Amino acid sequence: MNERLKKQLAFALEIDKEKNIFRQTHLSNHGRNENDAEHAWHMAIMAYLLKEYANEPVDIGKVMLMCLMHDVVEIDAGDTYAYDAEALKSQKEREDAAKERIFGMLPTEQKEELIALFDEFEAYETAESKFAHAMDNMQPLILNHSNNGGDWKEHGVSAKQVYGRQSQTAKGSLILFEATDELLKENIEKGNLK
Amino acid sequence: MNERLKKQLAFALEIDKEKNIFRQTHLSNHGRNENDAEHAWHMAIMAYLLKEYANEPVDIGKVMLMCLMHDVVEIDAGDTYAYDAEALKSQKEREDAAKERIFGMLPTEQKEELIALFDEFEAYETAESKFAHAMDNMQPLILNHSNNGGDWKEHGVSAKQVYGRQSQTAKGSLILFEATDELLKENIEKGNLK
Repeated sequence: MNERLKKQLAFALEIDKEKNIFRQTHLSNHGRNENDAEHAWHMAIMAYLLKEYANEPVDIGKVMLMCLMHDVVEIDAGDTYAYDAEALKSQKEREDAAKERIFGMLPTEQKEELIALFDEFEAYETAESKFAHAMDNMQPLILNHSNNGGDWKEHGVSAKQVYGRQSQTAKGSLILFEATDELLKENIEKGNLK
Repeated sequence: MNERLKKQLAFALEIDKEKNIFRQTHLSNHGRNENDAEHAWHMAIMAYLLKEYANEPVDIGKVMLMCLMHDVVEIDAGDTYAYDAEALKSQKEREDAAKERIFGMLPTEQKEELIALFDEFEAYETAESKFAHAMDNMQPLILNHSNNGGDWKEHGVSAKQVYGRQSQTAKGSLILFEATDELLKENIEKGNLK
């Protein structure tokens, strides 16, 4: 086996650890906490299914890859809950170190390609990035909605906080933001969101 | 929310159940059993990373989608261990019923598209299908190799059985089959495979 393939397989084995990074979101039917790998898988499929709703035409293969890879840095940096203001302050620094180490296991041009893809996702500027972020918002939303807002209740999250994040979905898809708004209003009515 | 989007979101919620379908493979570092969603996520990323080794040029977006979706039927049909001869007999019938029910939740043309993709994977004829199958073989192989062949030992699987399956990797990638062969020989030497 040559050095190039050895590096690629070492990276493939390393990212297995993402299956042990758990999120605040719970699986449907009041299941256990979800992990990053499952979340990424779910987002990538949702992106494909819902691509017709993107505001702008997207390269769907690129969106799917972005969805699949966007949380790899959390192997080192851990999951940062979207409504944890303290942890959000140090998130970038932790994730930058992680991306160097983890993507650094790959052959140089693959390292550079995947770091560029990660940075593109984070920068939130391209059509692909905006649509991938819409999935990053909607995927936990449909789980939490199915669980009667259990994750929001557990953390005492307010409607204002949730709208602060979920309103960004409109950047990627106005239609999916309308659907989001409908789900959020239902949860406010039910008292699931403060 | 219109009926089309409702169907798509209902399907998206339904496939959440794939996170509760556990496989015989264990995570690296002698971790817990892996579930289907994690396996699919891992395969899709490996396909992207290793696409240069495909025997024929592949539409990598299609390969990734195939990897992500290929086990959705197991929500109803359960996981069939690759070396369980009895369960393999009824696998097709169980999975055909499952694919009708689960993909049937989608709008008609998406149902038809995803069933066609699933059938293409199963038929093992196109370049994309062969490469996706190579990932379906290699992904558990690298985990099991990292765990000193624990899954094979647990089930008393023989080298002949493992070669029967893993040799199919050559259909998708001769280079990756050479790497597979190297890993298998190492495991035979160590006594991890009968």
